[in-house]
Amino acid sequence: MSRQLPIVEKIAASFGRQGLMQHLGARLLDAAEGRCVIELAYRPELSQQHGYFHAGAVAAIADTACGYAALSLMPDDASVLTVEFKVNLLRPAEGDLLRAVANVKKAGRTLTVASATVEAVRADRAIVCAELLGTLICLRNTPDA
Amino acid sequence: MSRQLPIVEKIAASFGRQGLMQHLGARLLDAAEGRCVIELAYRPELSQQHGYFHAGAVAAIADTACGYAALSLMPDDASVLTVEFKVNLLRPAEGDLLRAVANVKKAGRTLTVASATVEAVRADRAIVCAELLGTLICLRNTPDA
Amino acid sequence: MSRQLPIVEKIAASFGRQGLMQHLGARLLDAAEGRCVIELAYRPELSQQHGYFHAGAVAAIADTACGYAALSLMPDDASVLTVEFKVNLLRPAEGDLLRAVANVKKAGRTLTVASATVEAVRADRAIVCAELLGTLICLRNTPDA
Amino acid sequence: MSRQLPIVEKIAASFGRQGLMQHLGARLLDAAEGRCVIELAYRPELSQQHGYFHAGAVAAIADTACGYAALSLMPDDASVLTVEFKVNLLRPAEGDLLRAVANVKKAGRTLTVASATVEAVRADRAIVCAELLGTLICLRNTPDA
Repeated sequence: MSRQLPIVEKIAASFGRQGLMQHLGARLLDAAEGRCVIELAYRPELSQQHGYFHAGAVAAIADTACGYAALSLMPDDASVLTVEFKVNLLRPAEGDLLRAVANVKKAGRTLTVASATVEAVRADRAIVCAELLGTLICLRNTPDA
Repeated sequence: MSRQLPIVEKIAASFGRQGLMQHLGARLLDAAEGRCVIELAYRPELSQQHGYFHAGAVAAIADTACGYAALSLMPDDASVLTVEFKVNLLRPAEGDLLRAVANVKKAGRTLTVASATVEAVRADRAIVCAELLGTLICLRNTPDA
Repeated sequence: MSRQLPIVEKIAASFGRQGLMQHLGARLLDAAEGRCVIELAYRPELSQQHGYFHAGAVAAIADTACGYAALSLMPDDASVLTVEFKVNLLRPAEGDLLRAVANVKKAGRTLTVASATVEAVRADRAIVCAELLGTLICLRNTPDA
Repeated sequence: MSRQLPIVEKIAASFGRQGLMQHLGARLLDAAEGRCVIELAYRPELSQQHGYFHAGAVAAIADTACGYAALSLMPDDASVLTVEFKVNLLRPAEGDLLRAVANVKKAGRTLTVASATVEAVRADRAIVCAELLGTLICLRNTPDA
């Protein structure tokens, strides 16, 4: 993995400006060219009615990871917005933490397609609980900050 | 709209058990047979990096509204889980509050398809900012509570 | 419905250039600003293994209807490509013909979001069998013809 | 790849009953446990208005490949139906043939999630032109034939 410090710094700064990621307690674990990893430790504040992670929390970190995987390949004067995403919830999201790993599938001039796999992690195992496939748009001349 | 008190009460009780909805500050505005409305007032804790509502917050209330629209038509011994959803973000979600209105498109024995429209509301206007289309599954013999 | 002849003619000409629509036997029933209707009569050549209309045929006419609903609002020097779509198959597509009715939800400078409802029609009734929600892109300076 | 003859034979027989696959000229290239590959050679009858493969043809083979990847893991007394799928069209589908490779992501008792990658192949290269993520349902006591 060719981690480039400027990318990590740029993404980390943007991530820090996302009120929702802070409010949920999400953590940017890694960012590289075309790739981003976000983790979210379990708290009752993230639950749906049965006590699992809420699908909205799953989607929030997976979408954010895709957004930053896409942004990592965009020019510095650009920012990123989500156009759409679809998420399949393969299993109840039950565990100590969620880990969303996003990768860019195709980076175009205007549109980027990215996917994310979300794992529910416990002490002893990590099991895939969601798959996301989405589209991001590059807004030029509108810096992220 | 044929609002039935037992449905409202059942949905409200379940909504109250959703840690994420409380943490985000979402409010159950209405629930009826095949329909549910959820609102979310703006707070910086709900933002993405440009200050708009985060797509994860948009998706969270729209998915929840679809889930309860689906649950409203399910038997009392059943609970609901999201199978998948797709959300198109038509415009930046900018406003004083978001309002997600969900309706059931098809209620089957096992699967329900529902859609939600999310409006961004300001003092003077409401503008659609997202459309969601999703699938829910009915889990029998597993009461929601 | 404000049908404008130039739109119908433009869409009909483009539709006529779609080899797949001819090969399936699809028919352009209507086109107007932000709206398009396509029908497809049943033939065994359109079936899946149980004899219903194949999901690929359902998706093909629904996607095409969305594409032309979007193109109808684009400038004359532009053409349209599908970015993505999601289709929910609510019921087996069983009937004498399918009718896909598409409407634009949001027409932007670059991206358009459209939805389509597909009905399976028999002599005596029409029943919704699919819902599609998709994104189209406007390619400027690349005329459709 | 653990190809099992009975699976190939079962899938090939079902594929042969799909009128649409024959009508498009699609070919079942491989089927194994949780996996299926379908190819489609270019013909003008498969085109959209610019001469590329129509998105409906792309979706049709990708959905079919997912359906058979799912069916390969289901009991013999069961058949498969598509619940929903989302397809992202990464690039115009231009080439001599399309190849859809589907893999099961999660096989459940009732629902299966599968994904497919579609490549556009020319003499000298294969380039990914579409990604599909979908849900299939297992219908028990309703044999495929």
